[in-house]
Amino acid sequence: MTSAQTTRRTVLTGVAAAAALGLTTGTANAGTPGPRIGILLYDGFSLLDPTGPAELLSRLPGATVTMLAEHRGPVRTDTRQVSVLAERSVAEIDRLDVLLVPGAGNRGTVATMQNPVLLDWIRRVHRHTTWTTSVCTGALILGAAGLLRDRATTYWASASYLESTFGVKYVPERYVRVGKVITAAGVSAGIDLALYLASLIAGEETARAVQLAVEYDPHPPFGSGSATTASPELKALALRLLAESQE
Amino acid sequence: MTSAQTTRRTVLTGVAAAAALGLTTGTANAGTPGPRIGILLYDGFSLLDPTGPAELLSRLPGATVTMLAEHRGPVRTDTRQVSVLAERSVAEIDRLDVLLVPGAGNRGTVATMQNPVLLDWIRRVHRHTTWTTSVCTGALILGAAGLLRDRATTYWASASYLESTFGVKYVPERYVRVGKVITAAGVSAGIDLALYLASLIAGEETARAVQLAVEYDPHPPFGSGSATTASPELKALALRLLAESQE
Repeated sequence: MTSAQTTRRTVLTGVAAAAALGLTTGTANAGTPGPRIGILLYDGFSLLDPTGPAELLSRLPGATVTMLAEHRGPVRTDTRQVSVLAERSVAEIDRLDVLLVPGAGNRGTVATMQNPVLLDWIRRVHRHTTWTTSVCTGALILGAAGLLRDRATTYWASASYLESTFGVKYVPERYVRVGKVITAAGVSAGIDLALYLASLIAGEETARAVQLAVEYDPHPPFGSGSATTASPELKALALRLLAESQE
Repeated sequence: MTSAQTTRRTVLTGVAAAAALGLTTGTANAGTPGPRIGILLYDGFSLLDPTGPAELLSRLPGATVTMLAEHRGPVRTDTRQVSVLAERSVAEIDRLDVLLVPGAGNRGTVATMQNPVLLDWIRRVHRHTTWTTSVCTGALILGAAGLLRDRATTYWASASYLESTFGVKYVPERYVRVGKVITAAGVSAGIDLALYLASLIAGEETARAVQLAVEYDPHPPFGSGSATTASPELKALALRLLAESQE
């Protein structure tokens, strides 16, 4: 292969630098199996809740990330416009190192909180997980499965529901750890959760490298992502946009 | 319906507050069609590149977000562990308001840069878009389609490839706009791009509400997401994690 062809075939030029540093030989997990990460999809989930963490956690050495659902096949999001494939049914999976339960709009969250098959499965898998985690209203599903204690976080608009229904204190942080249960705040908070999880699973240096691997150096053009400083009008508009985009 | 049932069925309690403010009547887009947003999937794409922007842009009033590919059906990510469904083939779509081209690992990026069907389609659709956008190495695909001029951004490890192959200046910003082409940096930068796009399409107030809707108030536990401050060792480790998780 000529050098021109090599250039043509290697768009990530830093790969050469990594090779020069002797860091590309062998596998990062040195033959040991990495974490088995299962993400539970269900009808009406919010797209970024599972896909943000999946992107980051899939970079951990030897990790397997499996999208699961009650049944195999396409699972539609809350907007009904996008589908992610469930590669396995929950009946096929009884051991996971990490379980992640994403959130959804009202319809998907309530339906899953009332689904005995999924709640039973969550409880059964939770017995052997290293970490049981949620994003957004996924915390309410963990609550319905009886797994919340003391403190948790969830989507900002579900804070009072969380407190009144499950008797746990809502903490407005990006993620909250109680024992082996870690809940994250709304939607995008799953990415911060994933970095924290990465550090717990593989150490801080690897977590820092995962952050660089996904160039997660956030600079949103606005600073309106926190409900603690948002006006009632902005909260109302946010919830209206959500309600009108969901089915 | 009793009040207890209402509580049970409404986990997003702020919806009541929105109603009290009179903001839930009517549709946000008042009957006018919203933006037609098309996201081009291809074998080996990186999961967060399309799903971050899709999550945010789907909240714009009246928006339709369509996952597209050369052929309909499941499209696998770079890890080969996750699939997103392409709802339409590119042959079915000839008009879009927004085109977004995600990035991929080396294999997926190079294959798409050499796919005449997809490059021709990108060029054809681009003639009528309001915004033509990319995330991560998706910029290289826009470059292969002949759509880059002057300046662009891309994944940090592809910066020198971008400059040497397409003769444009790499700008290490989260997103770079040149005319109607907007390129974003790596993977997670698509979320910042989406907020900027939301403001261009629907105005700043709506964009701020979208940010709150996805609770995008980033607080990563580490500060290692930027290549401009990363050590050579961390860069090498990031690229090694990527290479070993991709197929």
